Amino acid sequence: MPVGLHPPAANALLPVDGVALGIAEAGIKKAGRRDLLLMQLAPSATVAGVFTQNRFCAAPVTVAREHLAAGKGARALVVNTGNANAGTGESGLAAARATCTATATLLGCDAEQVLPYSTGVIMEPLPLEKIIAGLPQAKADLKADNWHAAAHAIMTTDIVAKGVSRRIEIGGKSVTITGIAKGSGMIRPNMATMLGYIATDAAVPQAMLQEIVKQAADASFNCITVDGDTSTNDALMLIASGVGTAIDESNREPFQSAVTEVATLLAQAIVRDGEGATKFITIRVEGGRDNAECRQIGYAIAHSPLIKTAFFASDPNLGRILAAIGYAGVGDLDVAKLKLYLDDVLVAENGGRAASYLEEEGQRVMKQEDITVRVTLARGDAAATLWTCDFSYDYVKINASYRS
Amino acid sequence: MPVGLHPPAANALLPVDGVALGIAEAGIKKAGRRDLLLMQLAPSATVAGVFTQNRFCAAPVTVAREHLAAGKGARALVVNTGNANAGTGESGLAAARATCTATATLLGCDAEQVLPYSTGVIMEPLPLEKIIAGLPQAKADLKADNWHAAAHAIMTTDIVAKGVSRRIEIGGKSVTITGIAKGSGMIRPNMATMLGYIATDAAVPQAMLQEIVKQAADASFNCITVDGDTSTNDALMLIASGVGTAIDESNREPFQSAVTEVATLLAQAIVRDGEGATKFITIRVEGGRDNAECRQIGYAIAHSPLIKTAFFASDPNLGRILAAIGYAGVGDLDVAKLKLYLDDVLVAENGGRAASYLEEEGQRVMKQEDITVRVTLARGDAAATLWTCDFSYDYVKINASYRS
Repeated sequence: MPVGLHPPAANALLPVDGVALGIAEAGIKKAGRRDLLLMQLAPSATVAGVFTQNRFCAAPVTVAREHLAAGKGARALVVNTGNANAGTGESGLAAARATCTATATLLGCDAEQVLPYSTGVIMEPLPLEKIIAGLPQAKADLKADNWHAAAHAIMTTDIVAKGVSRRIEIGGKSVTITGIAKGSGMIRPNMATMLGYIATDAAVPQAMLQEIVKQAADASFNCITVDGDTSTNDALMLIASGVGTAIDESNREPFQSAVTEVATLLAQAIVRDGEGATKFITIRVEGGRDNAECRQIGYAIAHSPLIKTAFFASDPNLGRILAAIGYAGVGDLDVAKLKLYLDDVLVAENGGRAASYLEEEGQRVMKQEDITVRVTLARGDAAATLWTCDFSYDYVKINASYRS
Repeated sequence: MPVGLHPPAANALLPVDGVALGIAEAGIKKAGRRDLLLMQLAPSATVAGVFTQNRFCAAPVTVAREHLAAGKGARALVVNTGNANAGTGESGLAAARATCTATATLLGCDAEQVLPYSTGVIMEPLPLEKIIAGLPQAKADLKADNWHAAAHAIMTTDIVAKGVSRRIEIGGKSVTITGIAKGSGMIRPNMATMLGYIATDAAVPQAMLQEIVKQAADASFNCITVDGDTSTNDALMLIASGVGTAIDESNREPFQSAVTEVATLLAQAIVRDGEGATKFITIRVEGGRDNAECRQIGYAIAHSPLIKTAFFASDPNLGRILAAIGYAGVGDLDVAKLKLYLDDVLVAENGGRAASYLEEEGQRVMKQEDITVRVTLARGDAAATLWTCDFSYDYVKINASYRS
């Protein structure tokens, strides 16, 4: 069950001027499921995104990258669940392009102004005809106040819909930022994660928007992991509809900061709703020589099945964390100098268990739903924070039966 | 339950001249468990070994390395289960040294001629007094025909004891090789694995013995993984008692080959007895530019929780394998050129599902206990083979309750 995570209230997701959303039941995997999302953007919109680094990236990822690179701007995004259109070769690419063409015809724009996204099972052919048949229904549903339904339409194994809004003042003018995301398993984003969409009414030049989304992704989606599996379909898109406040270097900082906050809350929501999760774990590695080695140690802890199952059991079997730090691959690490904390409890120092450590103190923290593991390396000033969840029976259950 | 693995018959493990083994109930973790193994070696013996690369390596690993480096030869090995003596700082090192001193006094040799090994829970103090009290009992039990009991004495979460013997002819003379190993979880050896001991009556110079054990480990223990966690205590030792046939460059090859075969069978036994395992999976990556990239792709497949749970479910959800190949980190991999096979069934080619692939064929292979995943990269002549197991409810159960 999701850890300290509740779906956004129906009125919590603020409309963004210049962005309309429409949803359809296209019957892609099964009937009666709202599985197709269409987003229409104002002509003034700029769009930037970061995508999976998986070499087996999905056909829609390839096509969305191409269309963004074409530089004609984006007028629409189309998202389907129930099928990832990944590992589908040339016919998958043709299906992604045909989706864009059909959308462009419907909305009166160029096919290269449409960006496609898919999520679901890998290596199954995309049921293109169902998507094309569902598009008019999605178009008829287009409205600004549809983010709540959109957050639900992009879910797959997610239990809880994920959405966040922020309204900030920039130079006396209001700027709205609303984001939605989906993802629960196959989560170890590298550049982005499994489908996140953040929109704002601000006007942001394309090149600056790309820098802003990259920086937000690096501080949010690129700091989470559920199972270490980097998806074929990851994409985080930042849409600036351009109908509101103009962003330039003078007011970029508060805008970046609000976008990063929305991205971070969405990324954390994905971990809190991680497949089978019962614990939300923040891993903070400090005092490293550089950010890379802090992340390397953090991911070794975050990916260890032994540590994840100990968290599930609320068992302070904390030697497993020392073992993971030791095999993380930092070759010259002096283990006698590092310290390990569980929340405020000092667990290990001088290469072993701290003299002050009491098992009941470790037990107390392990029983919490939210836990921070903190490692201080004492060899520099760099730090990194990652977020992950535990590993439960339900993770196995969900993934041993996802397709059936 | 172990996959196609049976314990060695009581008479299947051949005595090795020049090596005596004694077992005791020392009550290290709980009473009534044979948890202490003493091995006494002939004065002519040479010993070589490879150890974990974990920076948090256990105290006995540090001491065994020091004692081997001292160059006085080894006369005894002491192995305890129930406590890893890892993450125990200076007091752990003192306890490992005290174990050697007590053994040396008992057997009349130098403390530096004793090599200590521990396995069990990490970051708990070693109950030194219980070990010292148990040593005389182990000494009284010393005999050559005790390998079967020794294989049982070193088990922790293992379900099945692991032991293999081979007798070969070299230059018309008989050479005996007997090996035992333990390990089931925290298995992703790097240089060696969690306690393997192989002994032979051959006479082998120390330097050559070290090369032979390294080569055997690289082809066996360094090719397996259960959960990706590299233990703090891994050690593979090769003991040549020196009372039998002399090995030199002229007869090295058949000897190396027999040692590697014993090591490979022991390593595979660890995977077959992997915590919660229901499937034994061979991963073969061929046609790579070098061995490193083949292993990188192999381990990405072997460590993916999504793939491991699909094997548990016998579900040919094979897109997950493509995803893992894609994120393995081989940056210039051309996914359109690779092929994926499940045993003899071609699953994917040209970047997607093979036209000839039938779901029922995939299903048939996935239901087997022994499965081979074969990936051909078509970019070179290098290849690598790894062995792993699936990921079941029982893995979570075992590791969520190991300490309690």
